[in-house]
Amino acid sequence: MEKVNIVLVGFGRVGRAFFDLLKEKYDYCRERYGLLLELRGIVRKKGTILLSSTQRVLSPSYFATEDLHDLAEWIPAITLSDLLEEFGSGVLVDCTPTNLITGEPGLSVMKMALEKGWHVVTASKGALVLKPEELKNLAKEKKLLIKASGATAAALPTLDIGMYSLAGTEILAIEGILNGTTNYILTRMAEGLTYKKALEEAQEKGIAEPDPSLDVEGWDTAAKMVLIANQVLGTELKLSDVKVSGIQGISHEVIDKAGKLGKILKLFGKCYRQGPDSAWKVEVGLALLDYEHPLARVDGTNKGIIFYTDSMGWVAVTGGKSDPRGAAAALLKDVISIYWHNF
Amino acid sequence: MEKVNIVLVGFGRVGRAFFDLLKEKYDYCRERYGLLLELRGIVRKKGTILLSSTQRVLSPSYFATEDLHDLAEWIPAITLSDLLEEFGSGVLVDCTPTNLITGEPGLSVMKMALEKGWHVVTASKGALVLKPEELKNLAKEKKLLIKASGATAAALPTLDIGMYSLAGTEILAIEGILNGTTNYILTRMAEGLTYKKALEEAQEKGIAEPDPSLDVEGWDTAAKMVLIANQVLGTELKLSDVKVSGIQGISHEVIDKAGKLGKILKLFGKCYRQGPDSAWKVEVGLALLDYEHPLARVDGTNKGIIFYTDSMGWVAVTGGKSDPRGAAAALLKDVISIYWHNF
Repeated sequence: MEKVNIVLVGFGRVGRAFFDLLKEKYDYCRERYGLLLELRGIVRKKGTILLSSTQRVLSPSYFATEDLHDLAEWIPAITLSDLLEEFGSGVLVDCTPTNLITGEPGLSVMKMALEKGWHVVTASKGALVLKPEELKNLAKEKKLLIKASGATAAALPTLDIGMYSLAGTEILAIEGILNGTTNYILTRMAEGLTYKKALEEAQEKGIAEPDPSLDVEGWDTAAKMVLIANQVLGTELKLSDVKVSGIQGISHEVIDKAGKLGKILKLFGKCYRQGPDSAWKVEVGLALLDYEHPLARVDGTNKGIIFYTDSMGWVAVTGGKSDPRGAAAALLKDVISIYWHNF
Repeated sequence: MEKVNIVLVGFGRVGRAFFDLLKEKYDYCRERYGLLLELRGIVRKKGTILLSSTQRVLSPSYFATEDLHDLAEWIPAITLSDLLEEFGSGVLVDCTPTNLITGEPGLSVMKMALEKGWHVVTASKGALVLKPEELKNLAKEKKLLIKASGATAAALPTLDIGMYSLAGTEILAIEGILNGTTNYILTRMAEGLTYKKALEEAQEKGIAEPDPSLDVEGWDTAAKMVLIANQVLGTELKLSDVKVSGIQGISHEVIDKAGKLGKILKLFGKCYRQGPDSAWKVEVGLALLDYEHPLARVDGTNKGIIFYTDSMGWVAVTGGKSDPRGAAAALLKDVISIYWHNF
């Protein structure tokens, strides 16, 4: 049995889902992996911290009997830094919201964790696409891992395939449909809706945000592709290196034209290079796929990614639930794989 | 840098491809993973062994300059046992042919390796579907790993997804199109060929064996599903536990009927159970897939697998080259993941 200290930062939809999942999976992880995943505290947006008032530890029995909102008092006086020092080492699970301009609060949170000797598992994209070098070097120096499945299409295993399943291959190119909102809009447009109608429908269903610009302008896809490239290919690309165009306001003519050509229109993230000595490039934009393309049938809010390799041909993966529970499951997976190696 | 001793057993199409790939990837694995993958010897069918005649070690420079057949003399006096003892520990790469009746020679080779403290990476299915308990217990007792990507659809990452990418989830069911020959025949039949013609074509192209019975009768699919279930779900199923029916001699009527129903006919391996307390079952047989099924478009010699989970929804993976190089790449991937954990 190995005890793993966990500190959760951020308590929005994904943070709460992670909290619930950890509670649900505590026994399973102990039995299956021999890991005691001990949540030591939750740090919220406002800097306050949740601990068991009696033990300063959220024991699993505590989880089982208490309702989320009654758990304990949130204590403003205890900072993230205090908590990390108190428990010495473990894994910080970063569920702070993504900010693609400043990278905060994820950047500060992740740096603090690494500096204090904690691994990082994150669902937040900002810091990693703005300061890839800084975070990578810090993790390397401290011999710690930053795992970002939760930030790269979550339950769709993008990084796992690229890093683990394709270990030893040379990756020649990567293509992905990585944003559920835009894929939903394009799917519904192919079924006859206008862009405006399709977007409204997506918003009504809670698929698109009230301000959908990060999705429809392609920035969410771009951030995911940068993250994947940096982890899988060892690049140090930034979001500003990506040529991005989105789907905002596209007309029905474009969709109809694709249909007439016998093609399917998708918002595609691409990572490629001209030759083995050229620099890697990431691009996001509309692409016309043949019906035979392994990602052509990835419809609605589904996502998919394909890797082209030198020794395994192409490998494509699709699916993975696009909801907070799916994202939480991706975070939990990353926590497990830091500590358990007998796959 | 970590030195990894490798002994290769079996020198047929996959064994040779592994030898070539190791030569090609030696420098890459050193640079990328810090692993010096040192092939110490090759044990052939007849029990003879290949070593560098001067150093008893096949150094990489030796690989680079010498042609395969000129490498060194095959010395009958040195046995696999000698070789394993000489180098103490490492990984045995088993490329012996699959025998679904006796499990040999893989069974003896794998047992010897484990008993002498070597990890096993295998492309051979027989032993693992006939004696799953015995091998599992031996590996557990010796704290060693048996990795079988090469035996479970090779470059298609079936075990990786089930074990690594879905860690922490509960797997509810698994379905797979895992045999290229039968999928090719069914694809060509859907295009109008008779069973006989499609099989002949597959044989002419080297897709089907001269004796295609293991494939067309469903046993290859069954063996792969048993292997996947045993690794991923922790079952100890044997090949004899599987209800198997194949595609041999199916009429065109069946294919036409599927088409009329708007469905696609596939040879499907399934693993499921009635409820959380029921026993897992594996079945192989023809299945009618909706066009929307994530594996419906897996055509020709392609393969695919889908996992249904409690917390990540479904995850499907398709592709992975079906040739000796693809199988060799799967073996190399397994070797790397035994020793390198910083994914």
